[in-house]
Amino acid sequence: MYFDTASLTYDARGLIPAIAQDAHSGEVLMMAWMNADAVALTLQTGRVTYWSRSRQAFWIKGETSGHTQRLIELRVDCDRDCLLLKIEQVGPACHTNRRSCFYTVVEEGGEKVVMAPEAD
Amino acid sequence: MYFDTASLTYDARGLIPAIAQDAHSGEVLMMAWMNADAVALTLQTGRVTYWSRSRQAFWIKGETSGHTQRLIELRVDCDRDCLLLKIEQVGPACHTNRRSCFYTVVEEGGEKVVMAPEAD
Repeated sequence: MYFDTASLTYDARGLIPAIAQDAHSGEVLMMAWMNADAVALTLQTGRVTYWSRSRQAFWIKGETSGHTQRLIELRVDCDRDCLLLKIEQVGPACHTNRRSCFYTVVEEGGEKVVMAPEAD
Repeated sequence: MYFDTASLTYDARGLIPAIAQDAHSGEVLMMAWMNADAVALTLQTGRVTYWSRSRQAFWIKGETSGHTQRLIELRVDCDRDCLLLKIEQVGPACHTNRRSCFYTVVEEGGEKVVMAPEAD
C-alpha cells in the first residue's frame, strides 16, 4: 500500500509512537516506536515492524519469538504524531510472555500485577 | 494516592507517554505526555493532567473545554516507560470535537475519516 510517510510528524530522533491494540478485544497490548521506513514496511508487508531504539534496527515483531502482529488497520491521530495499530496478535505481545505489556496496576498501597505469563 | 513517580522511566525531556483508553468501551481516545508531577497530580486528584509540550505547562484535560477525563485505573508497562490510563471521558477527547483523536484510517488509495465531530 502506498502511503506518504513524510506526511507524519516524527520526533527529534525521527520516531513516532505506535500503540498496538487487539483488533478484536480492544485490549491495548503495547507501545513501541516506528521510523518512516518501519511505517512503510508495516503497510507493505502487513507484518508490524517497529524500530528498536536499543538495537537501532528494524524490529519485525515476532521474528524470533513467533509472536507476530498482523496489521488489520492503521490509524493516525489528529496531530499526525501518533499511530494506532489494530492488529491480530499471535501469542503474548510482551517479552515477559504476558498478553499485554500493561499488566501492572498502580493502586492505593502499591502495585498489583493483574496478568500472568502465558504457558509456552 | 502515594506513588513513587521516580520509579518510572522518562525521556530526555522528562516526559512519559500516556495512552488514554475509554474504561468502558475500550476505545483508544488519545495519547499525550506527562512529567512526574503530572503523574502525581493525576493520581492525587483523579482528574487526568498531562504536560503540554507546546505551552510547557500542566494541561488539566477539559479545564477549559469541560471535556474532562476521570481516572479509573492507571497501568504502567513492563519497561515502565509508558502509561495506560483507563478513563471516563466527558464529551469528545479530541480538540476537533471527535470522540477520539484516532479518526483517520490509512487505506489503499488514501485516507478515510471514520468519525464525525460531535454536536456542541
